[in-house]
Amino acid sequence: MALKLNDHYLQKFIRPQEYTNIQPAITAAHKQLVTRSGAGNDYLGWVDLPENYDKEEFARIKIAADKIRKSCDVLIVIGIGGSYLGARAVIEFMNGQLYNQVNGDAPDIYYAGRDISAASMNELLRICEGKDVCINVISKSGTTTEPAVAFRVFRALLEDKYGKDGARERIFVTTDRARGTLKSFSDEAGYETFVVPDDVGGRYSVLTAVGLLPIAVADIDIDALMRGANDARLAFSDDNIENNDCYRYAAIRNILYRKGKVTEILVGYETYAQMFNEWWKQLYGESEGKDSKGIFPASVIFSTDLHSLGQFIQDGTKNQFETVISVESSEDHFTIPNDPNNIDGLNFLSGMELDAVKNKAMLGTLLAHEDGGVPNIVLELKDRSAYSLGYMIYFFELACAISGYVLGVNPFDQPGVEAYKKNMFALLGKPGYEDQKAALEARL
Amino acid sequence: MALKLNDHYLQKFIRPQEYTNIQPAITAAHKQLVTRSGAGNDYLGWVDLPENYDKEEFARIKIAADKIRKSCDVLIVIGIGGSYLGARAVIEFMNGQLYNQVNGDAPDIYYAGRDISAASMNELLRICEGKDVCINVISKSGTTTEPAVAFRVFRALLEDKYGKDGARERIFVTTDRARGTLKSFSDEAGYETFVVPDDVGGRYSVLTAVGLLPIAVADIDIDALMRGANDARLAFSDDNIENNDCYRYAAIRNILYRKGKVTEILVGYETYAQMFNEWWKQLYGESEGKDSKGIFPASVIFSTDLHSLGQFIQDGTKNQFETVISVESSEDHFTIPNDPNNIDGLNFLSGMELDAVKNKAMLGTLLAHEDGGVPNIVLELKDRSAYSLGYMIYFFELACAISGYVLGVNPFDQPGVEAYKKNMFALLGKPGYEDQKAALEARL
Repeated sequence: MALKLNDHYLQKFIRPQEYTNIQPAITAAHKQLVTRSGAGNDYLGWVDLPENYDKEEFARIKIAADKIRKSCDVLIVIGIGGSYLGARAVIEFMNGQLYNQVNGDAPDIYYAGRDISAASMNELLRICEGKDVCINVISKSGTTTEPAVAFRVFRALLEDKYGKDGARERIFVTTDRARGTLKSFSDEAGYETFVVPDDVGGRYSVLTAVGLLPIAVADIDIDALMRGANDARLAFSDDNIENNDCYRYAAIRNILYRKGKVTEILVGYETYAQMFNEWWKQLYGESEGKDSKGIFPASVIFSTDLHSLGQFIQDGTKNQFETVISVESSEDHFTIPNDPNNIDGLNFLSGMELDAVKNKAMLGTLLAHEDGGVPNIVLELKDRSAYSLGYMIYFFELACAISGYVLGVNPFDQPGVEAYKKNMFALLGKPGYEDQKAALEARL
Repeated sequence: MALKLNDHYLQKFIRPQEYTNIQPAITAAHKQLVTRSGAGNDYLGWVDLPENYDKEEFARIKIAADKIRKSCDVLIVIGIGGSYLGARAVIEFMNGQLYNQVNGDAPDIYYAGRDISAASMNELLRICEGKDVCINVISKSGTTTEPAVAFRVFRALLEDKYGKDGARERIFVTTDRARGTLKSFSDEAGYETFVVPDDVGGRYSVLTAVGLLPIAVADIDIDALMRGANDARLAFSDDNIENNDCYRYAAIRNILYRKGKVTEILVGYETYAQMFNEWWKQLYGESEGKDSKGIFPASVIFSTDLHSLGQFIQDGTKNQFETVISVESSEDHFTIPNDPNNIDGLNFLSGMELDAVKNKAMLGTLLAHEDGGVPNIVLELKDRSAYSLGYMIYFFELACAISGYVLGVNPFDQPGVEAYKKNMFALLGKPGYEDQKAALEARL
């Protein structure tokens, strides 16, 4: 078990019968999922993916990653939402937030096409000056505004620098298997392409080529990542929440939501987990936030944010619960040095491992927040390995599906994401949106 | 006016009489503040700071910053919570999130002492390898665990590399004016020191030496920053919310909170604003989150997060409101190139400024979220200048004080931050905490 749920710090907030009482809803959700009879059942490709993934493409991903590693200083990953968050989450979790500053000769990895900003675009172009560059554009349709604009810019940059033939060797496209203009254009241009499967939504796509190519470029063991995910798939197959920590997490979230805990804070104790928390926020927010329902997903990194949001969590409005990811063992070691002057009065810590102190900070915080009336779910992650991370990714994906079904929503659609796009296109005068333009402008 | 409040997208959610009805509470809060009769009145040093700041120290800050810029490749800023968030917020807002990658010969700036992590510590030490390093340690007491441990480590690094005499020229200490072991040790060792004023709390300290020294090292115009803050101080002195956008913001927050909007999402449209949002989260969360009250502060960067949390905001639980920072004019320019193939179907955007498209995305989102039942406060910031940023900083500081008084809390204390520290020290076996240790361990 690479991940275990510890419910010790929930005992004051959830009575034993509450678990019994929610079991039938969990069992029903489990049946919806395994019989593929629930809402959104066209998007269940992620369920068996860790076993059934395309082995031929997987091998090509490794070869492409190797080629990228050998041929560039900078890889620009172009994608928005689920098209970059999963990769970035895994890369930073495994290699650190400052990976680009400590990776030696390996390619730096930057993210483009995730905003609409001259400042961002110019910053990335400056970073590419004088560097050898490859790009991986990730877009199912190829028409999403942010990545499409970035692809225009960086494709032109490569063609100017290397010519069309040279650019061809540096452009890697992850898109629809067969349809869409990006796919047909890539085939014509001779770009190597990888597949965004039809039955896997963006927020569930990290273990497809969407996530795996950039992750492999960062020299992370993608075999171990998939193996971890597959072991989680096998481990969390029983619908009984006494035996299934993944379903138990889904149950606890719904129990707490129904008693007014409307915000969940995912807590990490390592800066390297920050983008993982962002991935989680998309997964849960986009899956459950619909039909005027859902737990608002927030995140913090402690002890950093104990000195910013800590006061609120301890003493503020009591509408939250925390889910704490505790990395149980670490290969990162640092011993606190002694100070003969002891100017900080901390010599009682001299010679201790920093991560041992972190562990006491975590336990102290759990007790403090329990005293403050905040329920805490603790997820004990075995270590900071690709295997364990893959295991945790699958844990959260599966729990999200079950949790969404228990909430009574379709966990796999995102109809609300279109609302701003439609308005934006109308205001921009996109052909076909003429009728809405005047009506919207009158409301500004 | 470098910042104006636009309440157009609130009209469906707040009726005119609600403003009238909350005015007396605003006036009362205003009186508490100006007569210094409210809770926490020992911590009002920030109010007149933009005019009354220590001019001699301000000049020394510039000289020290210049010395740091000339003598190192890397500045390590050591501090936690308000001791680093303000500086980092300003540096990234003005210079971009990837400043270290595009700043040429200027010193890179990294942040230490803000977590308890071997991974973080080792990463920073690797970054310092072979580089010339200066440090600015920021701690009022000198005894806060995270920065104290980092100061031990980086002081030793400098002394090993440059000797005690060389290290002395590279260590800059921002601490208490007179008390505390860090102050007396620094005086003995001959470090240059700057002051954390007694009457300015950490989250209000960005315009003191706490923030200004690192900000000046990043070559940001700190005179303009202070001038902007001072002009905001003068602009927002009328207690009538019809004439005072700052107080109007405080009023709106309380109006919405009382009708069940328990989460405020600060929305930026530029990645460079991300750490500013974090600074804001501390300011509001720590000031208001007490006595089981307060609006939970969250943040997003659009359009990035429209593809993660956008679904939730549009369609999910209706307990939130948004505060959108719109940077009205920009010196950042980028023109969308034409694509003869038009593979993305976006040629209707060819030749447009990227930031003009961003503006339409923002307007489209405001209308979409209004339709989704989410109140939106729009703060129109004139531009991305140090002057305007200083203005906005003061706007938020003052509004926070008024908002906290209207909520009925002491906006200037943070009693809850001690809870985890006490537990941590007891679990670590700190002398003096022996009694609590066994009781806490029994609860684990």
